[in-house]
Amino acid sequence: MEEAEMATESRGTEGGTRPKVTITAIAQEAGVSVPTVSRVVNGRSDVSPETRARVEDLLRIHGYRRRQSAPGDRAALVDLVFNDLDSPWAVEIIRGVEEIAHRDGVGTVVSAIHGRAGSARQWLKNLRARASDGVILVTSVLEPVVHEELRRLNVPIVVVDPAGSPALEAPTIGATNWAGGMAATEHLLSLGHRRIGLIAGPARLLCSRARLDGHRAALEAAGVPFDPALVAQGDFYHESGFHGCDQLMDSDSPPTAIFASSDQMALGAIEALRRRGLRVPEDVSIVGFDDLPEVRWSAPPLTTVRQPLADMGKLAARTVLRQARGEEIESPRVELATQLVVRASTAPPTEG
Amino acid sequence: MEEAEMATESRGTEGGTRPKVTITAIAQEAGVSVPTVSRVVNGRSDVSPETRARVEDLLRIHGYRRRQSAPGDRAALVDLVFNDLDSPWAVEIIRGVEEIAHRDGVGTVVSAIHGRAGSARQWLKNLRARASDGVILVTSVLEPVVHEELRRLNVPIVVVDPAGSPALEAPTIGATNWAGGMAATEHLLSLGHRRIGLIAGPARLLCSRARLDGHRAALEAAGVPFDPALVAQGDFYHESGFHGCDQLMDSDSPPTAIFASSDQMALGAIEALRRRGLRVPEDVSIVGFDDLPEVRWSAPPLTTVRQPLADMGKLAARTVLRQARGEEIESPRVELATQLVVRASTAPPTEG
Repeated sequence: MEEAEMATESRGTEGGTRPKVTITAIAQEAGVSVPTVSRVVNGRSDVSPETRARVEDLLRIHGYRRRQSAPGDRAALVDLVFNDLDSPWAVEIIRGVEEIAHRDGVGTVVSAIHGRAGSARQWLKNLRARASDGVILVTSVLEPVVHEELRRLNVPIVVVDPAGSPALEAPTIGATNWAGGMAATEHLLSLGHRRIGLIAGPARLLCSRARLDGHRAALEAAGVPFDPALVAQGDFYHESGFHGCDQLMDSDSPPTAIFASSDQMALGAIEALRRRGLRVPEDVSIVGFDDLPEVRWSAPPLTTVRQPLADMGKLAARTVLRQARGEEIESPRVELATQLVVRASTAPPTEG
Repeated sequence: MEEAEMATESRGTEGGTRPKVTITAIAQEAGVSVPTVSRVVNGRSDVSPETRARVEDLLRIHGYRRRQSAPGDRAALVDLVFNDLDSPWAVEIIRGVEEIAHRDGVGTVVSAIHGRAGSARQWLKNLRARASDGVILVTSVLEPVVHEELRRLNVPIVVVDPAGSPALEAPTIGATNWAGGMAATEHLLSLGHRRIGLIAGPARLLCSRARLDGHRAALEAAGVPFDPALVAQGDFYHESGFHGCDQLMDSDSPPTAIFASSDQMALGAIEALRRRGLRVPEDVSIVGFDDLPEVRWSAPPLTTVRQPLADMGKLAARTVLRQARGEEIESPRVELATQLVVRASTAPPTEG
């Protein structure tokens, strides 16, 4: 066993850009045996937590990478981690990641950590037990302790659509949320709308903030004052779009158009309008955000801002696999373009 | 290396129910060296295809399982294989599988093989290179050569919602499609509908046939003759529901209600009716099949037959992990109950 591990290590460091470091040197510095370092490298559980932490810190400091560029010692797996697998857009991202990984002979391990520390720790434990060439985190708000453990594992990480200030030193892949928010509201302005409601996403997510800022920038560029009474707070899910729409329509001066900053909220808003006996787009125009496959078939088909979710998944997979091969990543932050898709849910306002 | 592999084997067979067989015996019978058998067992690529086939056949004949019940030699991975990752119901099944596997410390590797032999072979190659505790195939129509290779790999297999006559000797997990089809049409009959259209799924899939037969059984139980002119052929996707609905409504005696045998086809049908200026449910009632999360928010919210997709995923994961531990499976064929969910897309017909 030890021989195989040593071979793995020397093969790995030869091809890499990091300084050469041997398990023997790490063992000496940590004051433990070579087999103990091997056990840590191979993610085995029969090492005390203190020893593991000390060895992993040294491995990291010396730039020792568990998984290296030699084909023989690749795990042939990437991890794709969601908070929850409860949205149709998850499958879009999975599809993109899987397409690239599959071609590269790499399996895509899909996990949900439900924003719970216990679940995230279980995932880390699983990851440690079986190894991974890289981790793609999707809008994951991880606890600091999980960040720290991921850093220790020293596995390449890419973050898709970061939820907040990225605390991990990892490349991030997003969409042009600000430009998309601006395009949505510009479209409604160009149709002649002046009272435009916004159903915003969760305030803690940067993408929500960017969409709101784009909406506001479009209004101000058109000389339309931004009215906080025309903003309802949502959480990206259907039900919050339903209630957000009701709130906006119940106000003293209801909007003639609503930009719902997710497709699911847009569908909820359309249902709220239907229950009020209002037609889309004759009475109220609706613009969504995401362009999920099913909104081509909503009643009416939804005008929305296309977020290239599958392409984001593909780029995330390419990036993490390049990192796993020890290649340099040009840009730590990439935003793919969003695009307005005009369908049947928007029209000029009835009264000019 | 060889020592480690031999240890794996003897640990595995001690706990199992299969007759004890050693790598040495297999090597003698195949006329190859012990290291060659080890290489085959460990899925390494440096063995000729002929030798690999001979050794794998012997391993299978003697009931040698690559992955055994001892915790130490589990791959800690299950494979979940779709034809395509292009439907919101895929994420429901992924969620169910992931929940069970995650708890068990097992990662869920999601793949799409696009019904193409090349892609399926790439997946088999990936699987062979990294090992797996079990494979869950979702409505996958695999080529015979892929069947044969999967058999050779000797890894536990479970099939979810089998697409046709299951050619693999594997447990299958489905839903009560016949009872669901019957419940959908009984609901429409109970509202007073007599001319009930059906948009059927792909004829090659058993689940489509079962839903059609259930629909027909409900009609005949109510004394309503089955009229082939009221059946349109779909493929489970939105667009076929749109065109299928148009076809039914264009007939000489259009239906007052339509059972679309997937939710996506039901949404396509609703859009077709909207474009014709017809209201759901006032002019035409629609029942779907699946109960995808988003149809709670379609306009109007869809009456549908709930297929417990996440539960099917959970049961598939439990079954394949039990097989991986060498446990017996009680029933090779399980159908989970479907359930009618009445929402706002169905009502009594306008004229009697």
